[in-house]
Amino acid sequence: MRALVCDTEPRLVTDRAEPARGAAEALIRMRVAGICDTDLALARGYMGFRGVLGHEFVGEVLEASDESLRGKRVVADINAGCGVCAECLARGGHHCRERTVLGIVGRDGALAERLALPERCLVPVPDAVPDDQAVFAEPLAAALHAIDEVPPGAAPVVVLGDGKLGLLVARAALSTGVRTIVVGHHEAKLALARAAGAEGMLESDARAALSSVPFVVEATGSASGLSLALALVRPRGTVVLKTTVAGATTVDLSPVVVNELRVIGSRCGDVARAVDALAKGRVDPRFLIAARYPLARADEALHRAAQRGVLKVLVEG
Amino acid sequence: MRALVCDTEPRLVTDRAEPARGAAEALIRMRVAGICDTDLALARGYMGFRGVLGHEFVGEVLEASDESLRGKRVVADINAGCGVCAECLARGGHHCRERTVLGIVGRDGALAERLALPERCLVPVPDAVPDDQAVFAEPLAAALHAIDEVPPGAAPVVVLGDGKLGLLVARAALSTGVRTIVVGHHEAKLALARAAGAEGMLESDARAALSSVPFVVEATGSASGLSLALALVRPRGTVVLKTTVAGATTVDLSPVVVNELRVIGSRCGDVARAVDALAKGRVDPRFLIAARYPLARADEALHRAAQRGVLKVLVEG
Repeated sequence: MRALVCDTEPRLVTDRAEPARGAAEALIRMRVAGICDTDLALARGYMGFRGVLGHEFVGEVLEASDESLRGKRVVADINAGCGVCAECLARGGHHCRERTVLGIVGRDGALAERLALPERCLVPVPDAVPDDQAVFAEPLAAALHAIDEVPPGAAPVVVLGDGKLGLLVARAALSTGVRTIVVGHHEAKLALARAAGAEGMLESDARAALSSVPFVVEATGSASGLSLALALVRPRGTVVLKTTVAGATTVDLSPVVVNELRVIGSRCGDVARAVDALAKGRVDPRFLIAARYPLARADEALHRAAQRGVLKVLVEG
Repeated sequence: MRALVCDTEPRLVTDRAEPARGAAEALIRMRVAGICDTDLALARGYMGFRGVLGHEFVGEVLEASDESLRGKRVVADINAGCGVCAECLARGGHHCRERTVLGIVGRDGALAERLALPERCLVPVPDAVPDDQAVFAEPLAAALHAIDEVPPGAAPVVVLGDGKLGLLVARAALSTGVRTIVVGHHEAKLALARAAGAEGMLESDARAALSSVPFVVEATGSASGLSLALALVRPRGTVVLKTTVAGATTVDLSPVVVNELRVIGSRCGDVARAVDALAKGRVDPRFLIAARYPLARADEALHRAAQRGVLKVLVEG
């Protein structure tokens, strides 16, 4: 089958073996997939991943042992835990030590004609949610999860980063009714933030204009984002760390101790909840779509997504 | 008066001006003071402090506008906030922007014959608590504050660092009944930890023997402590950061995001609560005392405290 494979460098192939469907797994036809900064990092060698890229998708179930799933349009939790450990039983396997992760750890991803995932990971998509919204279910779940850490009454929420992740986190924050400020580098993206209902601020203005805010989400994708977050947050405030920087970061952590800050890492969220938010119209992420490519041009799509300032690039199956 | 002054380098003087007693402040005669690693860092230039060192003490009130305080034996919250801002009114001024901090920020400290502090910072010491216990009230308050972050049911508590801070944090943890493991470098200090009721483990064994612990207190005083803490804590676990490293630290923070960790800075605690714990015999910190010096030899005391492996050095007024 056709697939975008991460090897020593990413390449589009047409002879990739169809994914083996394990026990209690479904075979899924990709309808639309999204390209995420993690895909770009994996393509550069992050985590040493080898296999089909892609973990944001909406697809159609071709084969499943659960007959009710067949033919259904689905999105998925990308963490495929062992299903039997305490972590899997208590919390869905996001931290199962034996987990594979779609297109990230030990499992071929969604930038292909077909993919396989445990049936328990799948979330059906209501007819009212079109493919180009449903494809955002996974990152929206993560964005909503980050916002869960906002303490009651804390406002404003400051989101560092005006890329696709920062803008989606801002949209998730706005959906809870909280005043939200996006700090970024690009006037055009800050205009998108404003159109979504947030305030937009250039990073060069943030240190002077913002101080002592209760809650900051660091979603810059840059190693320097944490330092800015630590400078803006008030004593006993919270910084949610979304950016994964591969390797060592150099940062002055003394504000964490002196100001008794809480730095909380946040990765994946509840995909069913994201689908619900989409179905209820609480978040419409389509403002993030920058371009669409057919799977036959997925290599071009990856290249486009890597260009500076480009938001969400979709690949259609 | 006699005082240990931090100037370009620390020096013992006999002609230091007596502290000016501000409005609603008490003048206190130092009875016993303790030397902390922060004093050693300040003496090396940390935070640019200039003035009398020392923030751990028990003393006797010589002058106060509140007559009931005169003659009383007291310890104190070392954070002297403005007393009128929202931070002071809500939470005791630990994060007041205008605060001075005894022997640390803008206020002469306790390694002197006399010191001054706002009366509202003072906590009377019951007769049952001797000076050489009361002098630990400030660091014990901080240790109890660190342990407040232990989630219900989480065990064991792992304390990184077998110095005076780590051992006191361990003792605070043990006072709550939780299983506690001290990780350090020195068999002699680990023996102290064991005598206090904790388990002791060499750092060289910790990575293999400990993994997926729910709660780690980083009290090594070393920049490398955080990396070890991040390696030992389980997904969604908590690391309390006690070590303040001046300047930039280089650390791989990706486990914070991937494992969704909580890194919580912790500085000062509630001194009245520490006095209560001492009075009730819940914690007896005297096992930490390594040496006692008269104030006239406070410079030697500082030198001794800076030697490798030396625990608490006390200075008697």
